[in-house]
Amino acid sequence: MVVELISVGTELLLGNIVNTNAAYLAEKCAFMGFSCYHQTTVGDNKERLKNAINMALKDSDIVILSGGLGPTEDDLTKETAAEIFDLPLEMNEEVKQKIEEYFAKNNKDIPDNNWKQAMIPKGAIVLNNENGTAPGVIMEKDGKIMILLPGPPVELVPMFEEQVMPYLFEKTNAVIVSQIVKICGISESEIENQIRDLTSGTNPTVATYAKTGEVHIRVTAKEETEKAAVKLVKGVVKELKSRFGGNIYTTKNEETLEESVVDLLLKNELTLATVESCTGGMVAARIINVPGASDVYKEGFVTYSNKAKKLRIGVNKRTLKKYGAVSEETAKEMSRGGCFFSKADVCIATTGIAGPGGGTDEKPVGLVYISCTVCGETEVKEFHFKGNRRKVRENATAQALTMLRMCVLKYYSEKTFS
Amino acid sequence: MVVELISVGTELLLGNIVNTNAAYLAEKCAFMGFSCYHQTTVGDNKERLKNAINMALKDSDIVILSGGLGPTEDDLTKETAAEIFDLPLEMNEEVKQKIEEYFAKNNKDIPDNNWKQAMIPKGAIVLNNENGTAPGVIMEKDGKIMILLPGPPVELVPMFEEQVMPYLFEKTNAVIVSQIVKICGISESEIENQIRDLTSGTNPTVATYAKTGEVHIRVTAKEETEKAAVKLVKGVVKELKSRFGGNIYTTKNEETLEESVVDLLLKNELTLATVESCTGGMVAARIINVPGASDVYKEGFVTYSNKAKKLRIGVNKRTLKKYGAVSEETAKEMSRGGCFFSKADVCIATTGIAGPGGGTDEKPVGLVYISCTVCGETEVKEFHFKGNRRKVRENATAQALTMLRMCVLKYYSEKTFS
Repeated sequence: MVVELISVGTELLLGNIVNTNAAYLAEKCAFMGFSCYHQTTVGDNKERLKNAINMALKDSDIVILSGGLGPTEDDLTKETAAEIFDLPLEMNEEVKQKIEEYFAKNNKDIPDNNWKQAMIPKGAIVLNNENGTAPGVIMEKDGKIMILLPGPPVELVPMFEEQVMPYLFEKTNAVIVSQIVKICGISESEIENQIRDLTSGTNPTVATYAKTGEVHIRVTAKEETEKAAVKLVKGVVKELKSRFGGNIYTTKNEETLEESVVDLLLKNELTLATVESCTGGMVAARIINVPGASDVYKEGFVTYSNKAKKLRIGVNKRTLKKYGAVSEETAKEMSRGGCFFSKADVCIATTGIAGPGGGTDEKPVGLVYISCTVCGETEVKEFHFKGNRRKVRENATAQALTMLRMCVLKYYSEKTFS
Repeated sequence: MVVELISVGTELLLGNIVNTNAAYLAEKCAFMGFSCYHQTTVGDNKERLKNAINMALKDSDIVILSGGLGPTEDDLTKETAAEIFDLPLEMNEEVKQKIEEYFAKNNKDIPDNNWKQAMIPKGAIVLNNENGTAPGVIMEKDGKIMILLPGPPVELVPMFEEQVMPYLFEKTNAVIVSQIVKICGISESEIENQIRDLTSGTNPTVATYAKTGEVHIRVTAKEETEKAAVKLVKGVVKELKSRFGGNIYTTKNEETLEESVVDLLLKNELTLATVESCTGGMVAARIINVPGASDVYKEGFVTYSNKAKKLRIGVNKRTLKKYGAVSEETAKEMSRGGCFFSKADVCIATTGIAGPGGGTDEKPVGLVYISCTVCGETEVKEFHFKGNRRKVRENATAQALTMLRMCVLKYYSEKTFS
């Protein structure tokens, strides 16, 4: 089946916002096995919107529209779509009540024009909006389907996942099963070299996506039954696990690297401290973004100045003088000092030259030392990152979390992961 | 003049990447005074691309295509566009030489298919690509213009800014001048209420954009001469300065809030320390992202646990017991302690409940206290932020930087800003 996406909104035509909805919907549609040959963006203009919808209906089975469902005069996606399918709009009591409840919950009066949102094309399926007032709508006519979704991603995404995907899955005769495998500590090119035999197949498909300091592999199979699809996916995931071992930090869609690190520390009853120079708070910020981080995280030192390195975590004056603040020796003393002063079991420390200034031939911009101490054992690694200040710091942060993970695994010789 | 954007690339149709080019180009075109009613995305498919270009040429004067200029068989934007304008492709010796130089510089052999990129439609303007091998192309025929740009933003953006914009400006009979005014510490709705009289005009236009903890106002004027346009813009910017005073942290396009804070501290020869609980490193991370932050930033304490609050920055045990870690009193002692232990002149401290757990009726999720000490004077503010853990922390970080700015300004009664 062929899907076409139409994004509606003058703010898109003016470039005020980036169209993340199109990428999100396109990815989901591809995942479900629909073909998509065309995406269109139009403004809140009835004539042009009408043309775009009619054109899309000619070439495709399903047209997904996002945006233009709001309460104002400008919002006319629903009115225009209903007109094309020749369906009258009717007041929907259930939706009306939901809108009343929404405003009551948020202690606000209901503006008059909001009732417009309770008008639903006759016979259409209503999609509840848990995060706003504009309901979504599905209309079917003569074998063609129009799906109308609100524009804000915070409303569109859960509505699509919880209500539209189950609806669309019933329209496909295939079951699609997909699993993510997230890898840290190995470069994308190295991974691609190692899985060339797996990526050449068409079912399951194996695709890699590079993230800062990580690579995600998505394995997707399409079969007539869920059982058959799961079997195909599982086979490849098992193979990936045997090739990449502990570098795979999760196979869960939502889990982040910092969540896997916090989880690993929790399981081993280890507490954590951070000592940061060039990453200056970024490692701590990612760790603390994990709900419940307080169970493992003790404290962090942002020792940006040499004085702080000496006073706060006891880096030796002579070490700083002889080797410099950006050196293997200083990094080592930083993570050891972090453990000593915080009484944490584990400490990760960073020191480097983020640029744009401060680089020399011997110590160029991008040089970063990361040191990890686990229960008294310390390992230091030297990195050379590319890019601007922000990029160097983001990469150093990702590698710090990776090293933290790998050092704890190494210390416990733990070879398994969920 | 009417512009239409066509993005070419199967990776866009599959949702593998977000189309930031469309937003970028749309914004620039709107800025130059072109109208844009339609954006299209198609895959690397000759027939469909041809249809899209023909449709676009019917309704617009200028068609800007991005993507599909690479060296592979799949890349056929240039071939298709040249065919439509009936222009033969010819080997361009200058482009050929540039490609040779590019590969020599990067120590790589030139793949055979790369010569395809040196084929240019007869009579077309060549746009140099300083960041890749695919040159851009401008073709004119019968009053219509096609502009072909490479897909990677790192190549497209500088090419557009340095070569396409001057070309397009000559096509318009107007000069457009625009200035940004960045405001912190006032909500978007409050700002909108205060500038309703200014936003209703059409020349200059005054538009607001909400960012996390900030609001940006863009003032744009279109006149026959630069002088007249600058005069219009300056008048409104002056009015905005008189209405929002020190809450305007910059009128420079590139300057960030953290840069303005570092700059303000530098000018007043003040040093800074951070003490963070709920924001856990995020304030430090933003400050340290400013090149040269080392001139003002001394150190940071991520005192996530109560123990660290007591040990590191001397928060009183009784304060924690009586008022709790998330309280005005604890916040105050945190920023005072930060100054005391670091010997910094200024300290900003945060403590709050980021969620999702840990909230009570009395102290709900989103409650954050921010305290700022400037040369012994301390001010605390209570905030209630909405959203998930990440959102609460990002908002708290932005407000911490805002408070830092406002407290320093207040301390010095400095009313001016650049």
